Amino acid sequence: MKLMEMTTLAATLLLALILHVGASLAGAVEALNMAAFGAKADGSDTTPCVRAALAEVRRSRAAKLVFPPGRYDFWPDRAEEEYVFISNNDEGLKRIAFALTQLKGLEIDGSGATFVFHGLMMPFLIENSHGVTIKNLSFDFSRPFQSEGRVLAVTPESVDVEFSEEFPYAIRNGVLVFTDGKKTSGPATTVKSGEVIYPYGNLLAFDPKKRETAFMAKDFYGVGGGIVAKQIAPRQVRLALSKVSANTGDILVFGAKTREYPGIVITDSTDVRLSGVAIYNTGGMGVIAQRSADLFLNKVQVTPRPGGERIVSATADATHFVNCRGKIEMEDCLFEQQKDDATNIHGLYAQIVRFLGRNRIEIRLVHPQQAGIDFVKAGTRLELTQGASMQPLGYVMAKSVERLNKEYTIVETEQPLPDDVKPGDCVADAQANTAEVLIKNCVIRGNRARGILLGSRGKMVVEGNTFHVPGAAILFEGDARCWFEQAGVRDIVIRGNTFDNCNFGVWGNSCIQVGAGIADEFKKTSRYNKNITIEDNLFRVFGSLPLLSIYSVDGLTFRNNRLEHTQDYPAGEGKAGKLFEISNSDNVKVEEPALVAPKSGGASVRKAGS
Amino acid sequence: MKLMEMTTLAATLLLALILHVGASLAGAVEALNMAAFGAKADGSDTTPCVRAALAEVRRSRAAKLVFPPGRYDFWPDRAEEEYVFISNNDEGLKRIAFALTQLKGLEIDGSGATFVFHGLMMPFLIENSHGVTIKNLSFDFSRPFQSEGRVLAVTPESVDVEFSEEFPYAIRNGVLVFTDGKKTSGPATTVKSGEVIYPYGNLLAFDPKKRETAFMAKDFYGVGGGIVAKQIAPRQVRLALSKVSANTGDILVFGAKTREYPGIVITDSTDVRLSGVAIYNTGGMGVIAQRSADLFLNKVQVTPRPGGERIVSATADATHFVNCRGKIEMEDCLFEQQKDDATNIHGLYAQIVRFLGRNRIEIRLVHPQQAGIDFVKAGTRLELTQGASMQPLGYVMAKSVERLNKEYTIVETEQPLPDDVKPGDCVADAQANTAEVLIKNCVIRGNRARGILLGSRGKMVVEGNTFHVPGAAILFEGDARCWFEQAGVRDIVIRGNTFDNCNFGVWGNSCIQVGAGIADEFKKTSRYNKNITIEDNLFRVFGSLPLLSIYSVDGLTFRNNRLEHTQDYPAGEGKAGKLFEISNSDNVKVEEPALVAPKSGGASVRKAGS
Repeated sequence: MKLMEMTTLAATLLLALILHVGASLAGAVEALNMAAFGAKADGSDTTPCVRAALAEVRRSRAAKLVFPPGRYDFWPDRAEEEYVFISNNDEGLKRIAFALTQLKGLEIDGSGATFVFHGLMMPFLIENSHGVTIKNLSFDFSRPFQSEGRVLAVTPESVDVEFSEEFPYAIRNGVLVFTDGKKTSGPATTVKSGEVIYPYGNLLAFDPKKRETAFMAKDFYGVGGGIVAKQIAPRQVRLALSKVSANTGDILVFGAKTREYPGIVITDSTDVRLSGVAIYNTGGMGVIAQRSADLFLNKVQVTPRPGGERIVSATADATHFVNCRGKIEMEDCLFEQQKDDATNIHGLYAQIVRFLGRNRIEIRLVHPQQAGIDFVKAGTRLELTQGASMQPLGYVMAKSVERLNKEYTIVETEQPLPDDVKPGDCVADAQANTAEVLIKNCVIRGNRARGILLGSRGKMVVEGNTFHVPGAAILFEGDARCWFEQAGVRDIVIRGNTFDNCNFGVWGNSCIQVGAGIADEFKKTSRYNKNITIEDNLFRVFGSLPLLSIYSVDGLTFRNNRLEHTQDYPAGEGKAGKLFEISNSDNVKVEEPALVAPKSGGASVRKAGS
Repeated sequence: MKLMEMTTLAATLLLALILHVGASLAGAVEALNMAAFGAKADGSDTTPCVRAALAEVRRSRAAKLVFPPGRYDFWPDRAEEEYVFISNNDEGLKRIAFALTQLKGLEIDGSGATFVFHGLMMPFLIENSHGVTIKNLSFDFSRPFQSEGRVLAVTPESVDVEFSEEFPYAIRNGVLVFTDGKKTSGPATTVKSGEVIYPYGNLLAFDPKKRETAFMAKDFYGVGGGIVAKQIAPRQVRLALSKVSANTGDILVFGAKTREYPGIVITDSTDVRLSGVAIYNTGGMGVIAQRSADLFLNKVQVTPRPGGERIVSATADATHFVNCRGKIEMEDCLFEQQKDDATNIHGLYAQIVRFLGRNRIEIRLVHPQQAGIDFVKAGTRLELTQGASMQPLGYVMAKSVERLNKEYTIVETEQPLPDDVKPGDCVADAQANTAEVLIKNCVIRGNRARGILLGSRGKMVVEGNTFHVPGAAILFEGDARCWFEQAGVRDIVIRGNTFDNCNFGVWGNSCIQVGAGIADEFKKTSRYNKNITIEDNLFRVFGSLPLLSIYSVDGLTFRNNRLEHTQDYPAGEGKAGKLFEISNSDNVKVEEPALVAPKSGGASVRKAGS
């Protein structure tokens, strides 16, 4: 036993103890310094230091962990491990750097530090905790979960792409594979090679100058089985693909196939605060909260690392809130260039599959990324909704549940189910997805798809934000046949925002849009979304799409808004002039917006935004 | 609520109750009839019936579950679910048809029934149980985990293959993908499609007439990222691959990429009996036992379904035993055409990664398919072995353990570790892998690779078996640098077996072989395997490879064996005549085998075997 690391470890623990006792004696807030647990900004592995510090937090009930400024690296090897079901992301046995479970009152202050994660791991899990704050830090992955290549040429049969050193790849038996660029030394015969592979599932072109999805670029799906490829020069590859929606000079993004490693996962927790946190890359959503309450995001940024060459930040939504209660607040946030929407606030529907009695139903979490997100317990008040129409069918109370597996649960109800409930209808937790929402002074731009999807049943205010997104800026969804997301707003004010040249892509048919999954024959009677007020906003518009496209709404007021026509994008050939497409709705009051003259030279979102 | 299935369910439960009470009153062995739980040989899903029956077994402590004869189908939808770590297979959250956990004394009698599993599920898990018997049944998968195609042509740049309807596939963006042939109706945009894919990772040619791996066929690896393919006719595909080891008329097997769904998993259990069980397909090993004792396999068959067209049975080893104790007996078994060895009986090594003190080490389960197979607990007697030489370094007792995750554990030891123990050396559980082994009257043939790999420290007898395998019939392995399998026999008798034209493939250099992972410079001093007696066997040999190839052995007796030269395969051009390659060994006694005249017309293994 020649080499012993005992001395260093003992010294570290002693230092931690001294700091801890010192803090206690002084009667101050107990702050533990991560340096005392061996954390060093020198490229060494910080993961074991975090485990040691969290063990001390649990022991001493310290309220604060502080990182000295600098860059800290994290590897998955010695990380905590837990099987986690994460709504709208992918479940699995994860390695977790910060496993913040069963905590009460802990602040992690990064002092401006940058965390760099290596390989397959999840940065933060906040689980069954109350009062956790994460602040003043940024995090990134050394090898991003997406891959990006510059488009050199596009022909009817192929796309030529150049990859920088940041995106290691190989062509194996003629098929493109992304790797971490490291040689593996493990056994490579009849079992796994031990190599880290970064699977891709879709392609999307971005415009590197505008730093947004390329004008009218379409998703290219179906490449999860691999792409036929040929090396044509060093780091240059010819992809045997036709009809890819990309042009020379674009950045073609190979989207991560799964969402296994989101950035900050909040589950079954209350009073969580994220402040001054910058998320540069994730293998899934940036921030995802489920079955939680009172969530406050202040100056959270989802953005590619400044000064880097990458075009994409998070590989899915910047933020996402499922079955949350209390308050959700996002203020002064920046959500840009992530591979999906800036936020989506919704509940969950489980489908009624079978009746096993008048008081007994089998329900199923149908969407594979909702499996395991159990939300029906004994005592849960269940809202019943007709699957095709999204119309309410009443309420029953769950008396007991028998979980068969992550998909299926048998529910016994206190009351018999109403006669008009049928297989294919669905249940939601009537008390969940009720958060009061404030989204204020945020900038949302350049990402794939939409701005914000709003479905909370609580009062919502969307105020003072700037949207520059390729799809609808604001979308009201909810359905029980595809995404199984419970939505249907009750009271929302959209006020004082700038909608700046939205709809420059293919993910929407207007700036503010209803997309609820109501079968056509029920649109006349269903009123899924209610009480929407849109006032004092500025719409900067280059094209011919309407400002609003809305159906099956009860209560809509559009007043005191302004409209500015721009020439920032090609206008296209749509039927010009129709600002409002409103059908099958009641209590609608729409005022024509006031026309505003364009500013001289035109406004650029990049100038306006930051 | 129009459709109620309550009546049927209630009737079923009532019937079960009556049968149960009847049995109790009669004082007979409590046998539950699966028909009473709704099991029907009519193509309906038997999975929920098994769940209901097992709930009743737990309630009533019934000792027997009986299936009426017939074909029963099983789907994963409503199956039990558990995250299982399975040595030498792939861990994961599995759907399990028969979750036989925490049981004491249960016999499942199939009465000759056939079980057909559909999709991704595990047939049997026997966990933390004592006295479980499974008998008189066969099982298969409707869509096998491997895929098979008939080779139509081979050129230097391509292989043309024809797939029967049994192996659905698609060519997506020019890449070959295997599917279950069903259209999926779920969402297929930014998330999983819900489609069941059968990934492949390697290719191997089989000879359909001889029903064995093609003569000298080599594994073709590295296709896990996909194969470039083109449709050339209905169900005919041209693969853009060169140097595939296959000939026109062969069956090219696309080996399953993972081993997630083995057939019968036995973990932490004792006294398990499998009798008259036929395994036609699995997505992993046929039978895999770990940390268990007293395992009896009688007339177990791993073989493709009789009358079918498939060439492969299990997609990995037929059987496998890891860290098992007590007795392991296999009698009158047939193991054929599985994609790996017939059995492998070994322990596990964890590597010492770091010293954290004189009594504190960090150990790692290095092999990805051993992760999570924790074997060090407080009180485990640890055998210390030098990594490079496989020489013993003494013993220490584990005092306490701290598990970091499925790979890493910190172990505190009662005694300080000997000074000559270094990182890279390894630990094993000195009490595990001690089973007394009997392998008798079995037929082992046509599978990929070797016959049996033997590494138990207990007394072993291999008697009256017939081996016709492409590699070594019997192999003594064990290493601490690649497979991390603890082996090193202490007392083995190999008696009265027929080694019938073995080594017709590439997986071995003799009929009985030592392949221990001892670095060359230590072979002179290391004596890893001990006391091997080989007597009264018949070696039928077509080629020039030795009968024995052995190094670093202490104690070897080869006596009273017979040798018959055959012309059943091309002899090749090896240096003829050297029957024994024995080096760096002590106490070796070798008698020349008696030459036997070939039988007229030659013997065929098919005739001899069954």
